[in-house]
Amino acid sequence: MEFITGGVAAAKGFSASGLHCGIRKNKTKKDLALIVSEKEANAAAMFTTNLVQGAPIAVTRDHLAKGSARAIICNSGNANTCNADGVFIAKEMCRLTAEQLGLKTEDVLVASTGVIGQPLSLDPIANALEALKKGLNSQDGSDAAQAIMTTDTVCKQAAVKFFCGGKECVLGGMAKGSGMIHPDLATMLVFLTTDCAVSSQFLNRALHDAVDNSFHMMSIDQDTSTNDTVCILANGLAGNETICREDEDYHAFLSALSAVTDALCRMIAEDGEGATKLLCVKVSGGKTREDARKIAKTVVCSNLLKCAIFGADANWGRVLCAIGYSKACVSIAGVDVAFSSSAGEIKVCEKGAGIPFSEELAKEILSQKEITISITLSDGEANATAYGCDLTYDYVKINGDYRT
Amino acid sequence: MEFITGGVAAAKGFSASGLHCGIRKNKTKKDLALIVSEKEANAAAMFTTNLVQGAPIAVTRDHLAKGSARAIICNSGNANTCNADGVFIAKEMCRLTAEQLGLKTEDVLVASTGVIGQPLSLDPIANALEALKKGLNSQDGSDAAQAIMTTDTVCKQAAVKFFCGGKECVLGGMAKGSGMIHPDLATMLVFLTTDCAVSSQFLNRALHDAVDNSFHMMSIDQDTSTNDTVCILANGLAGNETICREDEDYHAFLSALSAVTDALCRMIAEDGEGATKLLCVKVSGGKTREDARKIAKTVVCSNLLKCAIFGADANWGRVLCAIGYSKACVSIAGVDVAFSSSAGEIKVCEKGAGIPFSEELAKEILSQKEITISITLSDGEANATAYGCDLTYDYVKINGDYRT
Repeated sequence: MEFITGGVAAAKGFSASGLHCGIRKNKTKKDLALIVSEKEANAAAMFTTNLVQGAPIAVTRDHLAKGSARAIICNSGNANTCNADGVFIAKEMCRLTAEQLGLKTEDVLVASTGVIGQPLSLDPIANALEALKKGLNSQDGSDAAQAIMTTDTVCKQAAVKFFCGGKECVLGGMAKGSGMIHPDLATMLVFLTTDCAVSSQFLNRALHDAVDNSFHMMSIDQDTSTNDTVCILANGLAGNETICREDEDYHAFLSALSAVTDALCRMIAEDGEGATKLLCVKVSGGKTREDARKIAKTVVCSNLLKCAIFGADANWGRVLCAIGYSKACVSIAGVDVAFSSSAGEIKVCEKGAGIPFSEELAKEILSQKEITISITLSDGEANATAYGCDLTYDYVKINGDYRT
Repeated sequence: MEFITGGVAAAKGFSASGLHCGIRKNKTKKDLALIVSEKEANAAAMFTTNLVQGAPIAVTRDHLAKGSARAIICNSGNANTCNADGVFIAKEMCRLTAEQLGLKTEDVLVASTGVIGQPLSLDPIANALEALKKGLNSQDGSDAAQAIMTTDTVCKQAAVKFFCGGKECVLGGMAKGSGMIHPDLATMLVFLTTDCAVSSQFLNRALHDAVDNSFHMMSIDQDTSTNDTVCILANGLAGNETICREDEDYHAFLSALSAVTDALCRMIAEDGEGATKLLCVKVSGGKTREDARKIAKTVVCSNLLKCAIFGADANWGRVLCAIGYSKACVSIAGVDVAFSSSAGEIKVCEKGAGIPFSEELAKEILSQKEITISITLSDGEANATAYGCDLTYDYVKINGDYRT
């Protein structure tokens, strides 16, 4: 497996484009993205568990019922959520896109991200579709990836080349997400494309497996969004035998998918609103997988710990405190904690109690861009990793006046 | 019922003192508090549900087994938690205090608050006990209330005078708490004293009832502390017939207790770390009490909403979003939301969708010191209120380098 460029346009038969159509006030920010497969693609998706769901989710769910799709239209700047005419608007976005591409309405999936509760006007979208089609690029998904950004500060793309059933396959993806990020589903929008041939059923299964260990283990601010969508299209143009059982090919595909979701996951956590540091919490020795996951997620979510990491303060008491309220089954007297980064590793807590350590070295370790907190339990064999970021002045600033 | 001064020293037969003994580096900050009842008092307490519990909690639980106590010793600046010798130190604090006051070790309860995982030295405490006893004041609990403060910016005391069984009774209390505040138990330390005669059993029951609607409904930062303790002593010196059934007297007592816990609860929320605003979330029309409580607590905990309140941004979509992930049983299409404060009230969402409103008026309403978010559901008759505060730059600043 090898990382390559191209994002959602990297795989055979996929093209993508993005432009500014006028939903966002700032004309330098793209706000409309299109992804097209030249051949019908098997499709699978996962959505937010929030009871409040964006109108596009209802329409995409409906269009996905047949297990395939040809295109995805997505806007930023407005979530099309909690609007009386939301479903009509989302359907119209699909219909107009289909018309432009010569497809059926049900072949198009739709997603929106941005402010909740403000009516979304169709006009700027309708007027931009011709240009959007013209801009389709089969080498580079960057324009599309830029067009789905909201408070993101970096454009998030990843792609890999891998072998499956003797054929060279490609899987690529793009993501947006910076705030309102918490399992489940811990992301805003992720679109994945592959030329590998996979049945709808196994595409769905691989997506759940990959998401469970990546986006479901990430939190920026404990707020689960209303519009979260992770969607994958597989058009089969690589020519491999279609994956439809749990064999070697399936595992090769799952590895490629996991590599891309992990990479996007880290990019999102690193670009968390206001974040200055990527935080990885690794738990080992948990009684069950569920216990290890609960602990990793609870620790990565602690506001107090996140502030301490921002301040490079080795306040391990906050790690213990969070483990204590995680509701996991855990023996506190058997907990070890260490901090590490590119500057080294330092053990700060052994068997649930503090041990002497160099504050100087701890400070240096915690001053790096990527911090790992290793929690070793004495309860069993289960492991889990969670991703997050520090809590900073800028998170407050960004969210103090988001709508204006 | 009438609010009066005096805090924990307001009730007959109680005295309190506080001083700087040297646990905290800053000599202007008191760090040791003592509360004494001149007569044996019935006692009840509630503790953090965190699996990591401070050593003082183990000792206090033990001493409370007999349902009565005479004194409480409490330090700030060090939580005596996650230390190998913690229980020994906590017991010694009780023994030395008892010795000074001529009591038995088991008559003394102990609490600590501050940094986790740093050894607590007995010497400064032992050396200060004589002065602490000399300073006992039977009129004013301020010194004691100051001595339990950590990042608190205001000293928190409340007391009421009420009638029970034809006798005038007094109930007073003090609290500390600013960060690491989340149900259950949503506070750090609360000590309550009353001269009302109440059996241990009904004292315990009233405490649970009052806490359930106050400290259990408050969150500053979703971090449940390791040392939370709410403790009440009732010495019976008011001379009323001992309350030992659910009669009129019990309800008079419960009202007085609730008035004091509510007042302390609002003081804590208002003084949340870095907070500039008190946030009350009132839910009505919930299907069950539990649903209403879940929604109120989830909304008051949303980091995104808390940032919006800091910025006086009427981003009601974040209220809907939090309701949606609260896991309560709720019909989103029946949700109304209004913001209010001393500057007026404004409805911003009706039947789950946005309605036009004056941004100017909304801004003015949200610029006041005390904000209420009213959420009206269409699911039933249940109500709940939760307390919290905004999330600000200063929260991050305070917690970025807490230990130094």
